[in-house]
Order: sequence, then C-alpha cells, then structure tokens
Amino acid sequence: MNLATGAASNSPDPALDELCINTVRTLAMDTVQQAKSGHPGMPMGAAAMGYVLWTRFLRHNPSNPHWPNRDRFVLSAGHGSALLYILLHLTGYDLPLEQLKRFRQWDSSTPGHPEYRRAPGVETTTGPLGQGFGNAVGMAMAQRFTAARFNRPGHAIVDHHIYTIASDGDFMEGVSSEAASLAGHLHLGNLICLYDDNHISIEGDTALAFTEDVGRRFEAYRWHVQQVEGNDLEAVARAIAAAQAETERPSLIVAHTHIAYGSPNFQDSAAAHGAPLGEEEVKRTKERFGFSPDQTFHLPPAALAHFRKAVARGTVLEQEWQQRLAAYRVAHPELAAQWDLHTRGELPAGWQAALPVFTPADGALATRTASGRVLNAIAPALPQLLGGSADLAPSTETYLKGLPDFGPQDYSGRNLHFGVREHSMGALLNGICLYGGLRPYGATFLIFSDYMRPPMRLAAMMELPVIYVFTHDSIGLGEDGPTHQPVEQLLALRAVPNLVVLRPADATETAEAWRIALERTEGPTALALSRQRLPVLDRSALAPAEGLARGGYVLSEAQGGTPQAIIIATGSEVHLALAAQAQLQAQGVAVRVVSMPSWELFDAQPHAYQDAVLPPGVRARVAAEAATTLGWSRYVGDAGAVVGIDHFGASAPAEVLYQQFGFTPEHVAQRVQDVLSPSTGSGQRRTGAPSG
Amino acid sequence: MNLATGAASNSPDPALDELCINTVRTLAMDTVQQAKSGHPGMPMGAAAMGYVLWTRFLRHNPSNPHWPNRDRFVLSAGHGSALLYILLHLTGYDLPLEQLKRFRQWDSSTPGHPEYRRAPGVETTTGPLGQGFGNAVGMAMAQRFTAARFNRPGHAIVDHHIYTIASDGDFMEGVSSEAASLAGHLHLGNLICLYDDNHISIEGDTALAFTEDVGRRFEAYRWHVQQVEGNDLEAVARAIAAAQAETERPSLIVAHTHIAYGSPNFQDSAAAHGAPLGEEEVKRTKERFGFSPDQTFHLPPAALAHFRKAVARGTVLEQEWQQRLAAYRVAHPELAAQWDLHTRGELPAGWQAALPVFTPADGALATRTASGRVLNAIAPALPQLLGGSADLAPSTETYLKGLPDFGPQDYSGRNLHFGVREHSMGALLNGICLYGGLRPYGATFLIFSDYMRPPMRLAAMMELPVIYVFTHDSIGLGEDGPTHQPVEQLLALRAVPNLVVLRPADATETAEAWRIALERTEGPTALALSRQRLPVLDRSALAPAEGLARGGYVLSEAQGGTPQAIIIATGSEVHLALAAQAQLQAQGVAVRVVSMPSWELFDAQPHAYQDAVLPPGVRARVAAEAATTLGWSRYVGDAGAVVGIDHFGASAPAEVLYQQFGFTPEHVAQRVQDVLSPSTGSGQRRTGAPSG
Repeated sequence: MNLATGAASNSPDPALDELCINTVRTLAMDTVQQAKSGHPGMPMGAAAMGYVLWTRFLRHNPSNPHWPNRDRFVLSAGHGSALLYILLHLTGYDLPLEQLKRFRQWDSSTPGHPEYRRAPGVETTTGPLGQGFGNAVGMAMAQRFTAARFNRPGHAIVDHHIYTIASDGDFMEGVSSEAASLAGHLHLGNLICLYDDNHISIEGDTALAFTEDVGRRFEAYRWHVQQVEGNDLEAVARAIAAAQAETERPSLIVAHTHIAYGSPNFQDSAAAHGAPLGEEEVKRTKERFGFSPDQTFHLPPAALAHFRKAVARGTVLEQEWQQRLAAYRVAHPELAAQWDLHTRGELPAGWQAALPVFTPADGALATRTASGRVLNAIAPALPQLLGGSADLAPSTETYLKGLPDFGPQDYSGRNLHFGVREHSMGALLNGICLYGGLRPYGATFLIFSDYMRPPMRLAAMMELPVIYVFTHDSIGLGEDGPTHQPVEQLLALRAVPNLVVLRPADATETAEAWRIALERTEGPTALALSRQRLPVLDRSALAPAEGLARGGYVLSEAQGGTPQAIIIATGSEVHLALAAQAQLQAQGVAVRVVSMPSWELFDAQPHAYQDAVLPPGVRARVAAEAATTLGWSRYVGDAGAVVGIDHFGASAPAEVLYQQFGFTPEHVAQRVQDVLSPSTGSGQRRTGAPSG
Repeated sequence: MNLATGAASNSPDPALDELCINTVRTLAMDTVQQAKSGHPGMPMGAAAMGYVLWTRFLRHNPSNPHWPNRDRFVLSAGHGSALLYILLHLTGYDLPLEQLKRFRQWDSSTPGHPEYRRAPGVETTTGPLGQGFGNAVGMAMAQRFTAARFNRPGHAIVDHHIYTIASDGDFMEGVSSEAASLAGHLHLGNLICLYDDNHISIEGDTALAFTEDVGRRFEAYRWHVQQVEGNDLEAVARAIAAAQAETERPSLIVAHTHIAYGSPNFQDSAAAHGAPLGEEEVKRTKERFGFSPDQTFHLPPAALAHFRKAVARGTVLEQEWQQRLAAYRVAHPELAAQWDLHTRGELPAGWQAALPVFTPADGALATRTASGRVLNAIAPALPQLLGGSADLAPSTETYLKGLPDFGPQDYSGRNLHFGVREHSMGALLNGICLYGGLRPYGATFLIFSDYMRPPMRLAAMMELPVIYVFTHDSIGLGEDGPTHQPVEQLLALRAVPNLVVLRPADATETAEAWRIALERTEGPTALALSRQRLPVLDRSALAPAEGLARGGYVLSEAQGGTPQAIIIATGSEVHLALAAQAQLQAQGVAVRVVSMPSWELFDAQPHAYQDAVLPPGVRARVAAEAATTLGWSRYVGDAGAVVGIDHFGASAPAEVLYQQFGFTPEHVAQRVQDVLSPSTGSGQRRTGAPSG
C-alpha cells in the first residue's frame, strides 16, 4: 500500500493475513479466559476489519502515542477492549503481553473497558454505549477546527482521520443518533466508522428489538454508507479507501460480522457476548484456526513481525510529518509558535487580564449575563476556547459575538451549535477535549444536565477539563415550571467524583468561577448560573471574590467579629443570607455570612481553613440554597437547619415562587432564631436530619 | 365525517374552519401575552392541524376525560402548552377561560408546560423534549397489550389511537430516536405522530444544526411517512385518514408549518419561540385574522359552538362504547370482571401470598437473583405486571420465564425487549403507566440509571408507580470496571423528590422491597440490587424484614440491649456491618446494626420511631455503604463516620475491590472504635463533615 495516501493494495500474502487475524482471535479468547470475565465474541468477530484498519490504513506511531497528527482510533464498543489491547500490543505500543494476562485485574493497564491514561494508545474511556461514537464525532470536529486554524496552503500539518468501531448497542443508544445527525450536518468527511454489525446483543439476536435499517438511517443523516462482509479483507480495504476518498460526508461502513467467529458452538450466539467461551471451546476453536489447542497467549513469530512493522512505519510517518512541520515553521513562524502553545495545551500567559471587573454600578445582572460578558471578554485572549449550547445560546448567553459559527462554511468558527442534543453535546465535548489543545464548553439549563450525566461522568473519570455552563439554576427560572426547575441537580452533580460545581453569587464571583474553571486541568467544572438578576456585591464592604477559589469564604463577618450564628449560602441565596443577616443584626444577633460556591473546593482546603470559616464552636448554622436540603448536614451539623426545597417546583413568576417556598430573608432569619433557641423553634431533628 | 370510522370528509364550511383556527391562534397570543411569558409561535403554527385532529378525528369525551377507550393525545412539544389548554377549553373540558387568563401563574391549572393531574385531558407532563413522544410510544404499546388481553372476536373494547404532536426539538433528542426505532420494530400502527416541522428552534433556523432528512430516518425505522402542508386542512385530514388506515406501521405526518403563523413580523422567526409577541404585534396579527385588535380572549360564538360539538359527540362515542362493553360483559363475563379490576388499577386481593419465602437454607444468592425469583413467583398473580430490560435481562434477571415476549407476533406478551435504550425505556414505562391499568417495570445496571434520569424525574413528578430494577449496584460489579460501577448513583436517585430508593440486604428484604414497590401507588420505586451473592439472613436470630417498610430498622440489637455504637448499612454492606458487630462484641463493644434500605421511607416515619432506631443519646455511629459518603451525615451526625467511596471504582474481581477500598469488617469495626475514641482515631471533621 501507499502509506502516504493510505490507499489499499491487494494483499500479497493471504496466509499471513489469516495467521495475523487468528492470532488476534486466539489472544482474545485467552485474554478473556484467563480473566474468567469479559467479552470474547466481539474481538473475534471484528478481528479481520481491525487487522485491515490497523495494518493497512491507521497512520499512527506506536513509539509516540502523542504524535499530534496521528489518526485517532476509538473503540466505541468498549466491551471488546481485548481487541484494542491486543492490537496495541501487537503493533508495538508499550503494553507488554504480561498486561494481556492481567486483563481485568487490580492495577493492570488492561481494565474491563478501555480507560484513557491507563494504557498508551487508548484515546478515550469507552464502555457505556454510544459514548465512544460521540467522542469520535467530537474528535472529528476538533480535527476540522485545528486544521482550519493551523493549516495553510501547501502546509497541511493536520490532515489525519478519525476511525471508530461501533456496535449494535452503540447504535441503539440515542446519544449516537444525536451525534450522527450532527456529524452529517457538519460534513465531517474525516470521520470513518466501522459498524460491527454482528446482530447479537446480550438478550439474543438484535431482531428482538432492533430491526431498523441502520444504513438507511445514516443516509438520512447525510452520511456516506457502504455495506461489506466483515471477514472479506479486500472488501473492507476497498470500503475504507472509498471512505477516505469521500471528504464531504462522514462514512459508515456496515460490516456484517459474526460474533465469536470460528467458535464451533458460540459463533453467532449471545452466549459469546459477556462471558469466556470455556477452556474446552477455546481449545476447539484454536484447532479450527490451526493453532495448538494447548498453547495460550501464543504469538506466531510471522504474525508478530508483520504487526510490528507498525513501529518502523510509524517512525517514518512521524518523521515525514516533522519535516512538514519544519517547513511550516519557516513559512509561518507566528502560527508555528501558536502551534507549540496549542500542543502543550497551555493558556496564554496573562490571559486573566482580560477578565472583566464588575462593580455595583453595573446594576443588577443575572450571573448568566455576567458569564456571557466574561466569555466574550476572554475569548479573544483564548484561541483554544470554543463552545456553544444545546439550542439555548440566547438564554444561556454563551454566544461569542462577532466570531463565526463552526461548520462546513468555516471550520475555524468557535461558536458550536449542538442542537437540542444535550447528551451528545457532553460526548462531543469529551471528544474535543481528548483531541488535545482545545478548551471546550457546553451550555444548557441546569435541569437538562440530567440528559447528559453519562458523558459528564466520563469527563470526570478521564480528568478532562471540560466546562459546563448550566443556567436557570433554580426555581428562579419561574414560569416554565417544575419540568424546567432544578431541585436535585446541584446535589447530583456534586456527587460525581472529580467534578467541581461552582454556583457563584454575583457577577464578580462569576468571573472568578470562569478563572477557576479555565485554570483547572485535571477535571471538569460545572457552573450553575441564575436566570434572575442579582445585584453585584459591594466588595469594598464585603470580602473579595477570590475566596471562591477556596470553595467557601467569609463574605460578611458578624457585627463585632464574634458570630453567634452562621448563614451558609450559594448563588442567588447569598443575597437572601445578607438580607437575613441585616435583619438579625437589627435584632441583636451577630451573624456571619459564608458564601460557599463549591463544596468540592471547600472540602479540599486544609482543616484549619475550614475551621476558620466554620468555627467548630459556632453550632448555630443555617444553610440557604434553592435546592434539595440533602447533603447540607455535613456543613450545618446536628444543631443546624437548611432552608431548601425537597419537592418539585411550580409554574409562576420567580418572585412568587421565592415567597411561596420560603426563600425570604424573614424565613432565613427565623430559622437562625430557631437554631439559636431550639426549644422554642420547630427545631432540628435529633437524629441528625436537619428539617428543611 | 363518519364518527365510527374516523374517516375524514371534505369540510362543508371553510370560513368556519378559518374562524375556528384563528380563534385558537388569537387565544394563544392573548394567553401568552397576558402571562408575559411563554411560546406563542408553536400554537399559532400548529393550530390548523390541531383543529383538524381535534374536531374531525380525535375520539374523546370532554365530559369524561377518563373514558378508557378514548384516543390519547400527547403534546410532546410541551412548550406549546397554550395550544393544548385552548383545545381543551374550546372542546368543553372542565378548564374555564379564566384558567387561560391565569396561564403560568401560581396554582393555576395552566402551568408553563402541561402537567398531568393538573387539568383534565392532559394525558402526561411534557416539556423536556423527546419525553412526550416516548410516552406516546409507551401508550401505544399499552394499548396493544390491553387490546390483546381483553379484545375478543366481535368484541373490541379497546380500539383507539394514540396521537402526538412533536417538534423539531423532540426529534433532535436521542430519546425520541430510541423510541421511534422500537415503535417501528413493534409495528405500532395505532400510533400517529404529527410532526410540527416549522424549521425554527431557539437559536434560529433549524438549518443551524439539524439538516437531516427526518422523514427518511423514520422510514429507516420502518414507519409510514407522509408529507403535508400543515395549513392545508384537507391534506392534513387525508394524511390522518391514511395513517389510520395503516395498521402495521406507526405513522409520521411531516407537517410543514410556520411558527407564529399570521404574525406580520414574527412568522417563521425564532423570536416567536419563547417570548410573547408584544401587544402591538398581537393587535396587528388579530387584524390580519379579521379579529378586533382590542378584544382579548375573544371567543366567536360560531367557533365556540363548532368546537363544543365535541361534548355531544363524545357522549355519543362513549355511549356507543358502553353498549359494546355491555355486550362484552354478556359474552365474556370473566374477562369483564378482570376488565373492571384492570380499569380500577387495583392489584388482585391476596396477591402477596405468591411472594416467595427465603431462608438461609437457600444458600447465598444475589439480590438480583432473589428479585428474579420474586418476579417469576408473583407474575401469575399479577396480570397487570409487565416489563423488561434494556438488553440486560439475563444479567438483571428480570425475564418472566414461560411467558411470551411482547411484539407483533403476540401483543399479550409481558416480556418487553427495550434494546440498549435506557432513556426511552424510562419514557416508555411512563407511557405504559399513564395509559392506565398496568404496572410496568424496567431494568438495567444501576450505573445506567444516569441514562434515564429525565423520565424517572417525570415519573416522580407525575406520581406514577413505575418500578425500576437496578442491578450491579456497587463496585461489587467487579471486573467491568469504573465505567460500570455506580458510586454516586444511589445518592443521585435519593435526591429525586418522590422517588423511593430501596436497597435490600438479602433475599428476604428483596421480596419485601417488591411488595412495597407494588403497593406504592403515588410514585416510582427504584430497587438497587447486588450482582454478588449474599447470604440469606437468619430471621430467627434477626429482626423480620418487614422492617424494610419503615425504611430503616434495628436488624440486630447490641449485646445486652444497650448499644454503645450503631452501624447503619444498606444492601450488601449490611453483611459487613453484622460481621463488624461480631468483631466488636468480641472486643467488648456493644453495637446495634440498623438495616436502612430506604432513606425516603425512614424519613417519612414519626420522629419517635426514628429516635427508637437511632437513639439520640448514641452518638457513635458509622454508616457503611459502597457508594459516595455524601448525604450520610444526617444519619451519623457530627460525631459519626462513614465507610463509603468518594472516587471512581476500578476493574478487578469484586472481592479484591472490597478489600482495596476498605469494605471489610475490620475496617468498619475500626471506624466504630475511632468514633468511640475520637482522640485516638483519625477522627471526624469538626465542621460536621464526616471523614470517609
């Protein structure tokens, strides 16, 4: 084959092909059998097309898994992880055979589903179906964006493909439908998907629940669709070559495959989906393949040598590209400097100077509005920042004014239109972030975070610094009613490990929140922003908003400096807390107000700081947040109380709802009086459950 | 028209048609304008097809919104709620004009999005896009099931349609793709969807993000697809009639419409999506329609009279059906008795006798396995029980053995195959439950509850007693790894108002959990079940599992009856707690073990009961649950500790993970010692945050 163009040639050695493919299959059986757990069927069925793709087309460098212009390969069918591990091992990545033998064991590089950062060459964590496909679409968007930003005539330094193998299960999940529709819309001709159409899912034949015409569906999405026999190497090769030649439309190659191909008893059977074949069946299958039934983890030298050519080939590929990059540096030195910054994934020095400063003179403005001003102010300083919303840009105020939209007309556009597709937005953001060099954000109403939890969780697991902009963050949304009013969403997000949730109280905290989110490199951040207007707090009288970085801070000290009680609040309810503080101080009660925009950041502070903000001796504490009371006990303690909402909201103007549901300074002040005098008030639950 | 067949006739009075349609449009403008909030554009654009459907086809009885054989109408595009309210008012439902004037106000029957139970004729709560469409598919499944169960040759007592109006936004959401694929697979010819294809979403023209060929996509799902002009009444009528005639395939009628039709400045504009048109534009539009610009909420008598014919027509329709039912009673008295039970939605008396009894002699069995035995034992006694899983029946053990699968070959089948489509499973379950008479359940791994939170929330809001079977409920899932191991899901479910979460400790509690779930009528229940085997607790030595009904109960009293400490645990960790109790008692520490399968049920108990289980004087408390520690503070209190997991899991055998992550009797016992002697142990956070 011609490595430069990726065009397929007829195989000179069909016997070698067969040996190589059966090596993958036998290794897959052994890997799963050794673990006594896993999915042998998918790797056996997809081995042939995996082989063709990885040996004839994939432009990668096993010696440098981070080569920026490598093709990306995403195994969306993550349950077939053994296939990926085997291909990585065989083509020479730093994934020793020992790791295949430790498949699915504690601390191995070969967990049950591929995990980003755990083995070289694993481009994303997959397993939850549909997510990997969405990541691949996001990577294809990122590639288009990066190419548009850096390529210049005669100097293409970004010109690779995104490949993915997806399964029946991936295509039953709605998230993949959303992503596929957008990929077609965006003309992502750099994306090639091999569909492992084996007609078997866990319950049995896919005919039980899945009889749609997938190819025709993708044609409706405006994809380029081909059908091939998955074990016909030359047909697969021709289809991939044709897909490469199609640059305007993403390509779907529907490959008719056979789960557990070669297994006398389990081929085309659901029994091969999620369990080892059994030692006897493994032996029988090896015999069929002409392998010794008693040898395990056998690597025929000819097969290994053939696969390992990828190392030398990859070195050549990257060297050739380095030459192109060198020519680029000469022709476009300024862009090349940006490229270096881009590949290091760093923010430009001093970008924070672009952050706007807000004062009370700005008048009352919603934190979503402040966020919009921040975004627009910093966008010119941050060329890697791009994003958009799930059809709510005007409401979430996330549009970058004056910058182009991303799309076939201009792939350098930094405004993304995800459509009403929150779930795939999350998966695409992960793909964009995984691609490298970019800082994506995605926006919707906080309530619709429920539509996109699976990819957010994966972002947290993969430690991707994706930014979520969630506006309309409480009953303050008003008339749209309970279907649109978050109650439990804040807590549900706080519960996700490694996701930082920030609910700023005013415009100044909002600017700080954006700074923290952008400086974060090891995980995602969710901003919860108000629909309703909020005054800009007077920082000359109150503590500076830099306290947000520590999660919680003393915003307003009690009169006299010795608090009898503490009100802890977040976001819009900080203003309630300050008003309640004033009422209480008029009544002679000295109250401290703590703004606590982030539980996660506060929990990460040294105990001494935590105790300084919430002195252990001050037991009279009331939290105020227009959300579920659940989880606040750890801050208000046994003697405390929470002003929250443990039921669904209602449709009415926001001010009415705040009154009706007890979010008034008077009610907050009353609860403080209650906890100060538990015998007279409605009192806290002695079991430790604060009353709402 | 022929009411009996629903066949369309040519309109005898086009001027009256126009008056009626423009009455809907002007009312929509006034309703939204009065509220100063809402979506006028959709009702104006869809008024014509709504009029045709509601006056010529819809077989309903405004005087009896609960008539079992009524057609169901679902406004999936819930933001167009004004259209539904107006049609309900005009056709004579008990929804006075006053309520249109109170649109989106506190305690009105006309909230921003339609809410089930809040106004007669509202069949489901819609607004979150895609959900209503999924509900409609579920209703169509329920209709097929109910018809198959009760209809007999010559005696069709269930023969109505399900209609829905869906929007561009509905069809961008993946949940609708999933539901549409299954509807085509299931040959739901009783389902007719009018697609309000107005090409406008909030960000602008749908061409920004949505250029797929929706009709072709639905053809790929094996739907019957037609295209019409939405304002061409006779074309719409012909299409609906053709859709009725197509009984094998669900029908999509792609209706090309114009948002804010008739508005001189806002027709076909995104500006008409989510905001009132403004008083001046409303006047201009009324003038165009030949209405007085200064009259608001005007009901032309001829239009009202025409719409109100629905009352007499509905009475006739139901009377005719009552006659059919009377004949049915004579021909099939036993079935008729079942029908009465069915329509009352009651469980057969004494069904609980079918619940299996487990003893330690059964050996160790996973609670998922116990659940499967319970399901199979009670299914014969509960003909209204039907369900299935999202392609995980063998793993979730939710298959009803010996009963048929639901599908075109047998719609009386009670085993549903949802495919790998958790999100639509949730929406379909809601539709099945809303339809009436049925008790649906749906199963998947607990981790994938994240894929289906939006419909679960709606089930809770609508107070639907749907049952979710979530297995593999912790790191006990083992080798599949962190992508499949729930950590934060339990808490995230507990946070949903009105959702009861039950995590039984053994087979006996599992049977109780099913009893509670089935006896619940006012909201959904989620069962969290183990993958791993657990001993059946010896109830002769421990408290009876009936305590589960109270959410938490003293499973094992401390030696001597006076506890120094309490271990609170759920599910599989109850066994850890009992082992730790034994170790501690050997060390001379008297420990009580509380099984707390449900926070929600425990929180609903009288304080006296709560204090009896968790005596306020016993401050040394440790909670053990293989999930996030968040939220446990309210039960363990300031002096307590939690053995939990606040990070992602890992891929390894379950026993290894339990060891590695500290879920051992030794560690739980150590934490009890720590809280008993805080000065020597690692100690609790004085701020009230228990250490994990």
